[in-house]
Amino acid sequence: MKIHVLTLFPEMFTPVTEASILGKAGEKGILDINLINIRDYSNDKHSKADDTPFGGGVGMVMLADPIFGALRSIGPEEEVKKKKILYMSPRGRHLNQQMIENMAQQEEMVILCGHYEGVDQRVLDYWDMEEVSIGDYILTGGELPAMVLIDAVSRFIPGVLGTKESATDESIYSGLLECDQYTKPREYAEMMVPEVLFGGNHRLIYLWQLENALRRTRDCRPDLLEKWLAEDRKLKKDEKKILDKILSGE
Amino acid sequence: MKIHVLTLFPEMFTPVTEASILGKAGEKGILDINLINIRDYSNDKHSKADDTPFGGGVGMVMLADPIFGALRSIGPEEEVKKKKILYMSPRGRHLNQQMIENMAQQEEMVILCGHYEGVDQRVLDYWDMEEVSIGDYILTGGELPAMVLIDAVSRFIPGVLGTKESATDESIYSGLLECDQYTKPREYAEMMVPEVLFGGNHRLIYLWQLENALRRTRDCRPDLLEKWLAEDRKLKKDEKKILDKILSGE
Repeated sequence: MKIHVLTLFPEMFTPVTEASILGKAGEKGILDINLINIRDYSNDKHSKADDTPFGGGVGMVMLADPIFGALRSIGPEEEVKKKKILYMSPRGRHLNQQMIENMAQQEEMVILCGHYEGVDQRVLDYWDMEEVSIGDYILTGGELPAMVLIDAVSRFIPGVLGTKESATDESIYSGLLECDQYTKPREYAEMMVPEVLFGGNHRLIYLWQLENALRRTRDCRPDLLEKWLAEDRKLKKDEKKILDKILSGE
Repeated sequence: MKIHVLTLFPEMFTPVTEASILGKAGEKGILDINLINIRDYSNDKHSKADDTPFGGGVGMVMLADPIFGALRSIGPEEEVKKKKILYMSPRGRHLNQQMIENMAQQEEMVILCGHYEGVDQRVLDYWDMEEVSIGDYILTGGELPAMVLIDAVSRFIPGVLGTKESATDESIYSGLLECDQYTKPREYAEMMVPEVLFGGNHRLIYLWQLENALRRTRDCRPDLLEKWLAEDRKLKKDEKKILDKILSGE
């Protein structure tokens, strides 16, 4: 997959180009991040990329021309327009797992990172950009949101994650919050790992994990539990008993 | 403000320590990011920081001991426990603007970045950590979420943003999505800036911006419009007229 990123701060992208899992995906050639510095396409002698907004008001607005130039550097205009072009913006649609899985099907994608008070609206209109938000909070720019999106999408590109990690998506708890995790040693700072987890009885371990995941979801994200319950689930007797316990508020 | 970040990948944090606005805040001494490499506190000769989960299952779980050591490097345990300690996790409470403004009041904060299948639950229990999520999507680790949180929080620390930018929070549109922005030139790629915006009539400009913000919010985030309407607003006659137009679906 190739992701073109248009930004005023390409140097911010080291976390997705160098470190950890995404860095390895880059080396393997599975994920190609093409960082485009918008300022390189400014026709102004000072490489100006923003100006004051029409109608007054505070802050600066990113100029259309350098962004048009940056987009046309990717390929012929009609080809670029066929690709998914995203604009990271607090007024966009909230990113979710379904959108991410759909994006991972694309061969190529373009992401524009805004800064200051945003970009000239004509950029969004002309290139028919899709505004995407990572959450209801305000950031200093679109770079971190773009990295979050790239990280989330790349997890679904075959070969990016090892087999160990990718399997976690098939978790039986799909749709619930994750259950508590424990590793060695059995006792630490006078706290014990729940005994069932090293008892070796797989059914009991499964039931403990299910109960824990259901309880976490009920307490922290009742909206997710509601969705989970709405789906048709063929629960076995022992599972049903646990669900009843959780629903009774125990 | 001082933010201690516990991570296995401190090198990922260049976007918040070096680039752009947050880098300047660091230089000015307003924001001090203390990156702590968890691996440095491993007592294992191979600096091991994770192990297989009890109860089986895929992935690795971060060990308690190196994290305990990293936390104790910040100061005496009873002092550290008094600070806000966050754990970035998809099962946490969703970050929002109110939480961010509250966090910005703290003098010190600690953020733990998880990786792999998460951390030993005893870490969260013992240190009474608050789990925070940036949204309903799965990432390869807690580093990007921590950076998102730091970026959002730091905007509220006096001196981080210039006066120009900070003023935007007092926007009349507070609670609505931002209206479209335009900058020079008036005509670009045969697209014109709406004439009212360079007409110089401040009331008309304000009304255009209000209408645009209301329309964007109605179309993209009806939930926000509902909240906005629920608040007691003393609308003037011309504002009321615009609101009626938007509510009629025009």
